[in-house]
Amino acid sequence: MVSRDIMRSTTRDFQMYYNPELHNEVRLDTNTNVLGDNPAASKFLKNIDIEINGYPNTYSNNLRDALAELYDLERSNFVVGSGSDEMLDVSFKTFTEWGDNCVSPVPSYTLYDYFVEMNGGKAIGVDLTEEFQLDVDAMLKPEAKIIIMPSPNNPTGNSFKSKDIEEILNRSKGIVIVDEAYGEYADESMVSRVNEFENLIVLRTFSKAYAMAGLRVGYAVASKPIADMMNCVKIPYSLNAISEWAAVAAVKDQEFIRRSVEMVRAERPYLADGLRKLGFEPFPSDSNFIMAKAPVDHAMLVSQLKAKGVMIRDFGSKRRTENCIRTTVGTRELNDLLLSKIEEVLREC
Amino acid sequence: MVSRDIMRSTTRDFQMYYNPELHNEVRLDTNTNVLGDNPAASKFLKNIDIEINGYPNTYSNNLRDALAELYDLERSNFVVGSGSDEMLDVSFKTFTEWGDNCVSPVPSYTLYDYFVEMNGGKAIGVDLTEEFQLDVDAMLKPEAKIIIMPSPNNPTGNSFKSKDIEEILNRSKGIVIVDEAYGEYADESMVSRVNEFENLIVLRTFSKAYAMAGLRVGYAVASKPIADMMNCVKIPYSLNAISEWAAVAAVKDQEFIRRSVEMVRAERPYLADGLRKLGFEPFPSDSNFIMAKAPVDHAMLVSQLKAKGVMIRDFGSKRRTENCIRTTVGTRELNDLLLSKIEEVLREC
Repeated sequence: MVSRDIMRSTTRDFQMYYNPELHNEVRLDTNTNVLGDNPAASKFLKNIDIEINGYPNTYSNNLRDALAELYDLERSNFVVGSGSDEMLDVSFKTFTEWGDNCVSPVPSYTLYDYFVEMNGGKAIGVDLTEEFQLDVDAMLKPEAKIIIMPSPNNPTGNSFKSKDIEEILNRSKGIVIVDEAYGEYADESMVSRVNEFENLIVLRTFSKAYAMAGLRVGYAVASKPIADMMNCVKIPYSLNAISEWAAVAAVKDQEFIRRSVEMVRAERPYLADGLRKLGFEPFPSDSNFIMAKAPVDHAMLVSQLKAKGVMIRDFGSKRRTENCIRTTVGTRELNDLLLSKIEEVLREC
Repeated sequence: MVSRDIMRSTTRDFQMYYNPELHNEVRLDTNTNVLGDNPAASKFLKNIDIEINGYPNTYSNNLRDALAELYDLERSNFVVGSGSDEMLDVSFKTFTEWGDNCVSPVPSYTLYDYFVEMNGGKAIGVDLTEEFQLDVDAMLKPEAKIIIMPSPNNPTGNSFKSKDIEEILNRSKGIVIVDEAYGEYADESMVSRVNEFENLIVLRTFSKAYAMAGLRVGYAVASKPIADMMNCVKIPYSLNAISEWAAVAAVKDQEFIRRSVEMVRAERPYLADGLRKLGFEPFPSDSNFIMAKAPVDHAMLVSQLKAKGVMIRDFGSKRRTENCIRTTVGTRELNDLLLSKIEEVLREC
């Protein structure tokens, strides 16, 4: 049988991604919007009137124009694709040579290393400080071709300090990617600053606050020369026409986003308090999820909760997040459900 | 301003892809299905009842199961993604190291070189024979990590001989990709042979005969070990949920595919005859398009036809297809329209 020696050397130990077996559990493990499907996108889908036989616009210009209007930027500042994951892939393909160093903080999004290595690069993890903030000097030391960080950070939940991000942008000779997958929930964003820093790429997604993960839409915002390079490397018409138009509809309904963010801001302290009362140590969050150190074994807790019909995410076996779990901030009803199920598990163990 | 020196060295001369300005022209330039939107997919879209807030299945198992049933293979033989273009990208990412030779025939699909170079490989073109068949020895000589060919070939239209493809599969030490984007129109396919040749990857798309280019769905069929490696490298849930379920519906309606193929087979000789009578030299086709040498200047012809509301594709400036154009085989009505517009251009020039 053909062996993995035939694979690109940097991908040979890749395994399948998180793909849990599902039995109608309540999902607080993926940080999607607990208010449910995006209403404007759903309305669009109820009355689809577009030809599916023809190719979509090559560079998704309809959505790029809607985004330009939203942010008061130009179409040429945007690269649009099938999820921000595609934008990650395009970034590494556009800007790294074989073996280039790429730096990301530890802990952060687990898939960064995968995108770096998939594209032949060398993934270097640099520990965050004790407060889960950026260690600027340490991040810059490997002279990375790409430095990438989520802000708000996943799985810790906190935003990084703007002055640290700015310092990295100023001192790095390479590209700096700020992944704002949870940017809608945060107070600050780097999107408005792409014309100020020519080496900045900001990533955004429709999978979280926009409640459209099923449609796979994401985008990059950057200075025009950088966005142009990425568009030249990106696969033509990678975004399907229906997702593109659903996203256009969603962009034009900012009321849903405001409502979603307000709910999270109101419920986050309630959930944190509830977790604290049960013996957890929750970390500060600027996002729609909370990471917390569990008072009992993380793996037992997560699997027992799943058996009771509630899924949260286990980060307890990883360095720097020892015995930690991550849960989406729910509605009051979902938070009470989660807290009561945790209480049951704690009582039974 | 930041220069292109910052880009991956193999991508620095990339330009934007074919993206013509449109004014409601009749499109015979992209070889989509002239019978219009896939009816089963359209019916599905009229009654969408799926949650868009949740992530799709990580590996598109619903569609992989439908394809396994269609071909009497197993789920594990399939890799599914956002267009067969994503499958091309995944193939090169999974199986090539930096600088590896990748061979494709000349002329063939223009995007192969782009996918090779985007992924750091070295694209080597090997001329087809005078009859546009594979030059087997010449294809094998560069000892490529990947040999890739469309069959039926695009833009020439003919299928390659099975015995030549088999010989390449047997003699190559690398991966051999047979891109059957137009496979539904041909008499033979390599799909049923993926368990016989461990180094074979067959690519298929929903963008041509299936009439769903707007939804971006494609797939790779391969032996289980090869498909498994590709699934580990492929971006998780790259295919959106709506396109996946629309494709499942389309797979279960083979009657539309049969009807589409029959129409092309009936109309192809009619269009070829019509072109011949106007002074063209059409080449033999096993696909839903015809390449033909034009009796007048190719660029003038294509632009004059566009001005008259009919788009065909210009290959006249490329080696081996000098002064050639490529047109989709239309319905009788579309073919008569095309022929009459060409007649007008010839009369006026």
